[in-house]
Amino acid sequence: MKHLLPILAFIFSNVITGNYATAQSKGALNDKNESIFPRGQRVPASNFTGNAWVQQLIEPDSAFNIPVGNVTFEAGARTFWHSHPGGQALLAIDGVGYYQEKGKPIQILRKGDTVKCPPNVPHWHGASPEVGFTQIAITPNTASGRVNWMQAVTDEEYLKLK
Amino acid sequence: MKHLLPILAFIFSNVITGNYATAQSKGALNDKNESIFPRGQRVPASNFTGNAWVQQLIEPDSAFNIPVGNVTFEAGARTFWHSHPGGQALLAIDGVGYYQEKGKPIQILRKGDTVKCPPNVPHWHGASPEVGFTQIAITPNTASGRVNWMQAVTDEEYLKLK
Repeated sequence: MKHLLPILAFIFSNVITGNYATAQSKGALNDKNESIFPRGQRVPASNFTGNAWVQQLIEPDSAFNIPVGNVTFEAGARTFWHSHPGGQALLAIDGVGYYQEKGKPIQILRKGDTVKCPPNVPHWHGASPEVGFTQIAITPNTASGRVNWMQAVTDEEYLKLK
Repeated sequence: MKHLLPILAFIFSNVITGNYATAQSKGALNDKNESIFPRGQRVPASNFTGNAWVQQLIEPDSAFNIPVGNVTFEAGARTFWHSHPGGQALLAIDGVGYYQEKGKPIQILRKGDTVKCPPNVPHWHGASPEVGFTQIAITPNTASGRVNWMQAVTDEEYLKLK
């Protein structure tokens, strides 16, 4: 029995301090075995600040021209400002994220939250400063393209909520 | 110390038998607190066999006319045969599901699997006989509508894999 004491102490100390839940949450954002979808490829630094990854889930074709991707942001990472000619839907599936449309306050996104961004509205999205974020992005192709990239989200803009 | 023995015995017996993981997996399909999205409303029995629920995640509008829903199937439940004028994308997020296009074998869908169903191809989807299934469905509205329902999937068709 005595040799079990350290194990028991570890379990209870972690439950009490909440370390167990924290470890699970971080793991889900970084270990592809715990996430629903693979983390995929690093996104180009030209349109993102910080580390982010995209896994294409649905490849578009002429019959179904709606690419769907899984995007994982490390804490602090975010897109540049951009807009979509066909709009975009976001589904938050893990972690804590930020979403902001031009001229509006930052919205916090948590697992289960969804966003419908209208066509041609400048916006950005990404992780919160302390916790990473995973989202599914549904972004139709249109005759006018799929995304128009703009300037980076400054630290001042990003940290406005804090 | 002695009063902790039953707790310890419970933890270790469940870990050893795998009951902990099983309970989590079943819970994710039935308890809305463990799922990413709420289970939503029961679907009409006129187009489904067994118990299934739909939670609308993205309401379509004229600017973004692509409804997105979370569909939860109890073990054994499935849609009727149907087709979509604009096609459909499915993302498997929990449990074990079945997907079949007319004239092709049944595909097994597990967490992380995706399907792109072409426009106007008759198909059905649902849970496996023993384990429930949760999917995200992306189904564009078109000038020709969104879904055309057909006949029920018979037990013979459904159980062909077993």
